[in-house]
Amino acid sequence: MDLDFFFKPNGIAVVGATKKMKGGYAIVVNLKAGYKGPIYPVNPRYDEIEGLACYPDIESVPDPVELAVVFVPAPAVPGIVRACAKRGIKGVMIESAGFSETGPEGAALQQELKDIVAETGIRVWGPNCVGLVDAKNRHVFSFVSPAIWNEGPIPGRVSLVVQSGMLAGGFLVDTMSHGTMGVSKVCSIGNKADVSETDLLQYLLSDPDTEAVAMYLESIPDGRLFTRLCAGAKKPVVVLKGGKSERGAAAAMSHTASLAGNGAVVSGALAAAGVTEAVDFKQMMDLSRALAMVKNPPSSGRVAVLTYSGGAGIISTDFLYEQGLSAATLSGGTKEALARVFPEWMPVNNPVDLWPAVEKNGAGPVYTAAMEAVAADEGVDALLLHVYIGGLALTLDPDHMAAVAKKTGKPVFIWLIGEAAGARNFHLKAQEAGIPVFRELYRAVECMAAVFHQARGKRHAPLPDASAGPAPSGDFSFLERSGVLDEYDAKKLLAACGVETVAEAVADSPEKAAALAQELGFPVVMKGLAPGEVHKTERGLVTLGVASGEQAEKEYARLSGLVGEKGRVLVQKQAAGGPELICGMFRDPQFGPTVMAGLGGVYAEVLADTAFGLAPLSEDAAVDLIGRLKTQKLLDGFRNTPPVDRKALARVLTALGNLAVWFPRVSQVDVNPLICVKGKPVAVDATVILE
Amino acid sequence: MDLDFFFKPNGIAVVGATKKMKGGYAIVVNLKAGYKGPIYPVNPRYDEIEGLACYPDIESVPDPVELAVVFVPAPAVPGIVRACAKRGIKGVMIESAGFSETGPEGAALQQELKDIVAETGIRVWGPNCVGLVDAKNRHVFSFVSPAIWNEGPIPGRVSLVVQSGMLAGGFLVDTMSHGTMGVSKVCSIGNKADVSETDLLQYLLSDPDTEAVAMYLESIPDGRLFTRLCAGAKKPVVVLKGGKSERGAAAAMSHTASLAGNGAVVSGALAAAGVTEAVDFKQMMDLSRALAMVKNPPSSGRVAVLTYSGGAGIISTDFLYEQGLSAATLSGGTKEALARVFPEWMPVNNPVDLWPAVEKNGAGPVYTAAMEAVAADEGVDALLLHVYIGGLALTLDPDHMAAVAKKTGKPVFIWLIGEAAGARNFHLKAQEAGIPVFRELYRAVECMAAVFHQARGKRHAPLPDASAGPAPSGDFSFLERSGVLDEYDAKKLLAACGVETVAEAVADSPEKAAALAQELGFPVVMKGLAPGEVHKTERGLVTLGVASGEQAEKEYARLSGLVGEKGRVLVQKQAAGGPELICGMFRDPQFGPTVMAGLGGVYAEVLADTAFGLAPLSEDAAVDLIGRLKTQKLLDGFRNTPPVDRKALARVLTALGNLAVWFPRVSQVDVNPLICVKGKPVAVDATVILE
Repeated sequence: MDLDFFFKPNGIAVVGATKKMKGGYAIVVNLKAGYKGPIYPVNPRYDEIEGLACYPDIESVPDPVELAVVFVPAPAVPGIVRACAKRGIKGVMIESAGFSETGPEGAALQQELKDIVAETGIRVWGPNCVGLVDAKNRHVFSFVSPAIWNEGPIPGRVSLVVQSGMLAGGFLVDTMSHGTMGVSKVCSIGNKADVSETDLLQYLLSDPDTEAVAMYLESIPDGRLFTRLCAGAKKPVVVLKGGKSERGAAAAMSHTASLAGNGAVVSGALAAAGVTEAVDFKQMMDLSRALAMVKNPPSSGRVAVLTYSGGAGIISTDFLYEQGLSAATLSGGTKEALARVFPEWMPVNNPVDLWPAVEKNGAGPVYTAAMEAVAADEGVDALLLHVYIGGLALTLDPDHMAAVAKKTGKPVFIWLIGEAAGARNFHLKAQEAGIPVFRELYRAVECMAAVFHQARGKRHAPLPDASAGPAPSGDFSFLERSGVLDEYDAKKLLAACGVETVAEAVADSPEKAAALAQELGFPVVMKGLAPGEVHKTERGLVTLGVASGEQAEKEYARLSGLVGEKGRVLVQKQAAGGPELICGMFRDPQFGPTVMAGLGGVYAEVLADTAFGLAPLSEDAAVDLIGRLKTQKLLDGFRNTPPVDRKALARVLTALGNLAVWFPRVSQVDVNPLICVKGKPVAVDATVILE
Repeated sequence: MDLDFFFKPNGIAVVGATKKMKGGYAIVVNLKAGYKGPIYPVNPRYDEIEGLACYPDIESVPDPVELAVVFVPAPAVPGIVRACAKRGIKGVMIESAGFSETGPEGAALQQELKDIVAETGIRVWGPNCVGLVDAKNRHVFSFVSPAIWNEGPIPGRVSLVVQSGMLAGGFLVDTMSHGTMGVSKVCSIGNKADVSETDLLQYLLSDPDTEAVAMYLESIPDGRLFTRLCAGAKKPVVVLKGGKSERGAAAAMSHTASLAGNGAVVSGALAAAGVTEAVDFKQMMDLSRALAMVKNPPSSGRVAVLTYSGGAGIISTDFLYEQGLSAATLSGGTKEALARVFPEWMPVNNPVDLWPAVEKNGAGPVYTAAMEAVAADEGVDALLLHVYIGGLALTLDPDHMAAVAKKTGKPVFIWLIGEAAGARNFHLKAQEAGIPVFRELYRAVECMAAVFHQARGKRHAPLPDASAGPAPSGDFSFLERSGVLDEYDAKKLLAACGVETVAEAVADSPEKAAALAQELGFPVVMKGLAPGEVHKTERGLVTLGVASGEQAEKEYARLSGLVGEKGRVLVQKQAAGGPELICGMFRDPQFGPTVMAGLGGVYAEVLADTAFGLAPLSEDAAVDLIGRLKTQKLLDGFRNTPPVDRKALARVLTALGNLAVWFPRVSQVDVNPLICVKGKPVAVDATVILE
């Protein structure tokens, strides 16, 4: 995506520049402080601002000019954008507020901007944003008060995209002024009338100054393109999604759709694309700086913990396992090497409590020896160091430590506490040398885990690798109806798509019911299918354990009475086994067709343990999806239940995804329950909802 | 507990005082800087140290002297303690290392200390500790380098007890030097040869300078006394328990005992006692400062969020619900009051996005008006303010904000970001005024939740309120055996203790089996009980669904063959219903008899969702215990399953607790499954293990 004219424009016009101590003044001052190209203030009331020639209107601005930064009242903005387009300006960054965030009038103005973009091809950034900062090039295209830029932003390797303007500004200031993290580009994208998170992601993924992208987003309108970019990205992406607890507006007739609330679809799509999901603001920054600093870690996460406190070592171990990492088992050779710096009485194990050794031989030599010893161990993938600064015989030199860390060639993470000034000094130096430092132990482990999981999580792009292939042939005339298909037709459709369904047939008389039951083998299940009914159990339309021909005849009479002339009666083999699953498909407003899987009934609904992925879904991606269920242990066989064939289960999910592609009129599908009979999933009941 | 002679002794001897730049010098300098009583360095090599007369030995130290701080090599320590006891000194604080932490020789020295304590009644603090700091009285009884005390510790209302010496020192230095939290007393208790966490808890709970107690503990040897103290405490207690992932050494023949690993017993006992459990070090400090600052909150946790960013508001709401709090619903009157400062187009809802109002009317007036408006709402229990410091038109005055907060009379919590120096200034001032400030949003909400939950969690002391009452009478001669009771005897015992058990009888012939089955009603369950066998299902000794007399006779033959002459065959009514639970009792090495409950089979074992409480357990405490299950929703009725009678379930747990008291030879009990039939729990299978 060529958005260079936003990031390194050849010439900038500032529409709304002023000499008053307001945003329009700050933009000019900020530009002058770092931007090397020509700056053209535009305001009919001035001839010059800050020593720069000021122009009455955009038409009179001389060449070269590629970008206009606009900070005037909202109603004047559309006219200015038109003039910019006419003038041949490529991009407009609208920092004024007063658009769709303010109600119908503002929304109309924003629509006008979109129309101009569509007509003229000019690109619009914002409105209602705080602009753009490029720390490396010292570009500050923002009305944010110049005071904070006095020392210049600290350049780093993480680029930030933030939808909320206030948060973008606030976070930038917080991060910069604390000094413990640099950033590359910070993009506040506001109302996203045109330039979107997806555009910027594409740009930043190919930006040589960006090693990781962190994004705070309240909406991801083109969820599919966004996740496709993430899945294909060679750089780590961290996303904090706001408003996940707000349910989508989609009518949720199926379980699948109703389980999709609480951001489960977003989380599923992001996880499948290898995105690290953040839950809080500072945590997002911590995750992204760790990901930007530690690249290409080994594939497993066996961690050696070096500590000055046995207790903190033990708590670290708890955290490692909680986060899906493990405590490395040290080899005999490593233990021998460590024993050389330890007092004799001290047993050496991971976590390695260095304190007795430090008392004997001093902190510097002991930390160095221990780092070298554990890093040389083939069973160790990364080091977690506990560092205390501020006396207590634990003085450590960050430069020396960084040199040792570098030599080891393995990722080193530091948990740091201590006397404020000394600790800060150590923090800054270690960070500079490429060692991520954290002030809370849990955060350190969380970030280590993110680095390892991110490296592992990039295998199965949900798109465009997967393809549904050709649609099945057959008589699907029932799909021309609308509303709810009955269970029999629903399963006919599933079977055609490759899902194994339970043996069953429709009975049209009591005698036929008895004969079918005999044929299927007792006990059977009998169901009354009434048009449009999706709550059969609750309406008394499901009878389990029908054990004789006589009972089948009676049930036929009862059920056919209940469902009436338009209904029908189904006789079905009674599937037994376990575990029970629920799976389905629905169309998400942002992410399109989406497949869901979860453990059955109680698990899915009470524990809300479900996983979502975008359709079409390759078999590998479906296996991954299953692996994201928290209760997946239940699939591995329990007491007398055989383990579930995960590949067979994955094929059901793939089939559901394909179904979504092949039959666009199908809006929602529930397979509930999907019972595993001797480990093989069989669809026992299903609901299909047509557009 | 009178430990005043440790905290405010009348006269201190420093054994191991020196003029060299070592710990024994630092102790003297630290004492001189704050302690007002007489100080007596003891060292035969000097006449004076730092202008103080130095004495050759403890015997020659003049009166008054109540405390000796000892910092000499470990082997010399026991002799010194004896001399102190003889000299009439009440307490000895041993800061030297080299005791049980170093192996057998050190352990012998430590045992000698314990013997001296038992013989003489002198109290010993440590060894292997960094001593004691009392910030208010400027008492620093520690060898920790004097440099960090230059500005003196910052007095606060939280007292800290830390088992690990290094962490105690490290944390104190970290906390003090960052300046954003004061402490009252910091106690490093080291190896706990005598003075224990329980002693100090008792002391601090009646210390007028302590409003909350935070403890990092690696062991709680007298778990019952400790939790009893916490349960009765009027001050909040926060505990971070190290080493929770290490399993107890107890042989775990029962499910109950094996599920007790991972610190579940500690967590259960602490939760029942109203203790706030921390998971990380800094988090422990944050929790305790919040608990010390905000006292007596209302009983519900309905929170109004005031923010400058809609996105952060939404994320706050997610966090509130995740933590068991809720977003307050604002009254019509409140919305009207807020509308007065808002632009017309802006809808007013909680979370309240103040930014548009701030743009219109300025930050100060808008925050004030909004705080006053939401605090006046009867539906609001607490305020969560998002504050940004550092320009962006959001300048706020902490003093004014504190004054407004005070006037509202409701708890106010602040999430703060911004420009480092300005934010720190705001932070310090707001904290000083009694408003807890947090730099991470999630932490702010977590601490709010701790305050509300702590206020609610103090209802049911596990001890000494509960009492088992008189033991049941009956023939319990089978309890004189050892090892495993068979299922039949196990349930006889449970029934005697008041647990409803499934109808069943022992058959001694095929005919008897058929007759019993007829009597109980088909289908029945038949089980073979072999002596000492606890895995009946796995051994093919359980047959469900025996449907006829003929089948019962056949099963009798098969089972009696399998269990042999010493076994017996049980015929049992087949209990149907749901949900299935597991519960039990075992004796924890630290906490004594403990009761467990969890959702059945798969839930308890795969999801490890169990809750533990100390026996005897009152019915109210048992109801609370059930309420701590994460999967407790499954008890509330699901589809066609009626809700579980929680009081009846609580009575089962109470009975298990009483059983532990009445029958000391019973070491472990499993009731698995406990099936709820029409909502009433019935013990279907049980295992009792004798000492």
